[in-house]
Amino acid sequence: MNRIRVAQFGLGPIGQACVKVLAQKSGVELVGGIDVDPQKIGKDVGEVCGMQKNLGLVVRGDAAALAEWQPHVVLHTTLSFLDRVEDQLAMIIRGRAHIVSSTEELFYPYQRNPEFCQRVDALAKQHGVAIVGTGVNPGFSMDILPLCLTGVCTEVKKITATRVVDASKRRLPLQKKIGAGITRKEFRERAATGTFGHIGLRESALAVMNAMSWPVDEIKESLKPMIADKRVKTPYLTVEPGQVTGIHQIMRVQSDGLERLTLKLQMHVGAQKPHDSVEIVGNPPLSMRIEGGIFGDTATIAALVNSIPKIMKAQPGLRTMLDLPVPYAFL
Amino acid sequence: MNRIRVAQFGLGPIGQACVKVLAQKSGVELVGGIDVDPQKIGKDVGEVCGMQKNLGLVVRGDAAALAEWQPHVVLHTTLSFLDRVEDQLAMIIRGRAHIVSSTEELFYPYQRNPEFCQRVDALAKQHGVAIVGTGVNPGFSMDILPLCLTGVCTEVKKITATRVVDASKRRLPLQKKIGAGITRKEFRERAATGTFGHIGLRESALAVMNAMSWPVDEIKESLKPMIADKRVKTPYLTVEPGQVTGIHQIMRVQSDGLERLTLKLQMHVGAQKPHDSVEIVGNPPLSMRIEGGIFGDTATIAALVNSIPKIMKAQPGLRTMLDLPVPYAFL
Repeated sequence: MNRIRVAQFGLGPIGQACVKVLAQKSGVELVGGIDVDPQKIGKDVGEVCGMQKNLGLVVRGDAAALAEWQPHVVLHTTLSFLDRVEDQLAMIIRGRAHIVSSTEELFYPYQRNPEFCQRVDALAKQHGVAIVGTGVNPGFSMDILPLCLTGVCTEVKKITATRVVDASKRRLPLQKKIGAGITRKEFRERAATGTFGHIGLRESALAVMNAMSWPVDEIKESLKPMIADKRVKTPYLTVEPGQVTGIHQIMRVQSDGLERLTLKLQMHVGAQKPHDSVEIVGNPPLSMRIEGGIFGDTATIAALVNSIPKIMKAQPGLRTMLDLPVPYAFL
Repeated sequence: MNRIRVAQFGLGPIGQACVKVLAQKSGVELVGGIDVDPQKIGKDVGEVCGMQKNLGLVVRGDAAALAEWQPHVVLHTTLSFLDRVEDQLAMIIRGRAHIVSSTEELFYPYQRNPEFCQRVDALAKQHGVAIVGTGVNPGFSMDILPLCLTGVCTEVKKITATRVVDASKRRLPLQKKIGAGITRKEFRERAATGTFGHIGLRESALAVMNAMSWPVDEIKESLKPMIADKRVKTPYLTVEPGQVTGIHQIMRVQSDGLERLTLKLQMHVGAQKPHDSVEIVGNPPLSMRIEGGIFGDTATIAALVNSIPKIMKAQPGLRTMLDLPVPYAFL
């Protein structure tokens, strides 16, 4: 069987981890890596990813390299927002490669930016490639997994998905992103910018509401700090009592006067009893719990890599994980 | 939006329950019911299904009625074995309707009967329709759900799926099917026939092994009776101490000398702590539990009905739930 030619676009922590996983897949040939960081361009992809060996692939700074490499699929792991990645995605599509992206807003982009969707969908169809956004959250624990569970329900009245993450065990950028170690005042200031907190909760919510055919009347979102009651140490930082350990973000979605969907996300250092859970009020009712939770750093890499064989078989155009076959590991 | 025209083929307990659910879906128009039972033919479908009202649809005894009804999709709920349903499926396919079937062996039929698969696939493609087998087990709790969980794993070494069902709460045919109330000797005699016990464990196993790209070296299957240590009463029957309460069926699948997959199914009246659980040894490891378990009678109906919109969009031919988009409720 011919191996799938894959290029990695974005060599930050997620992209580096993807490269390490891809390098071990017998069904994949890694054909190149792209990053805009001048510190990385020109170096070997293996070196940039902290691997023991060089891969014989030099990091390039632009997507023009795709014309040389001719990948079947590009794993795209750069930024969270649609307007920041559209040019990158367009370049990859013009390079005639399918795309699996970690861009959170791409998981379910239709409501947030319909014009973006039309442009990207048309361009992808024109070039005969498919594009999808995925990850663990959005992409799995608060959307695809709860939806999958409703697959055995004849009736669904309400879905509650909860994710409690002990950020102590996650990488430093994530600990910083959730505000670990800042003050309450700093938290308020950041929250006021509107760009702080977990990105993608809205995308998860819209995907679930749409799949359930529940019109969205109102989305209520709250973002509160979790506060340390004792000193918390992680391998990267220390949080003193009274400082912020992370975020507690809740999204409640109403449809026809009923709260149909509740997403509760706690990500903080020192979180007790981390878990993922889903409660479905329906017929039959379902109560699912993953004790310890789904380890996010690895799970996001997995969601990306595991989508490679599936995006290759997808219909050209902009797709979501709701269109692709049930996800499973690509071993 | 045009409603989906659905016919029900098979009006036993599962088919009757499907009709009741279908009758409540605004997106579905029930167009007819078929059963071979002379007691049912000629009666109103609503009456046969124990509904309060007639549906204005008369039960027909043969698939020829499909030519009049022109359903988009037929829900097929008759028998468990491929060789018993092939003629029925062929008639429906010639009627140009997509099929969602509860036939357990159809969930993953490729290894058990490749010739059947070739015939049905070719016939379905010829008539431009798609066909899939589903249910809760096989179809969800020991195959699709465990597979879905591996979607966030970069590595999977072993999967264990456990389902403990308290059969007291299930319908009488199921209680009889698992041998509730028979003696150990009767159990041994039935087990020796090779057709006793839960049907579909092998199909679940083969689907998972194939998705994980694990070659199947050896399948070990055991079927043991669960024995009452005290009297167990259900709404339908009573089991005395020392009699059989149900089955304990285990399937272990080896690949390259490693036990990769273990499926453990207990179905017995009076089962304590019913649940569905999945353990994945991998990266990340995952431990999922659905306390109380997935109520099978309802879940099977749901799996069938929820597949209606998905089979309509599937490529023509013989499909499995691994080919269709991630399952979710059709509300």
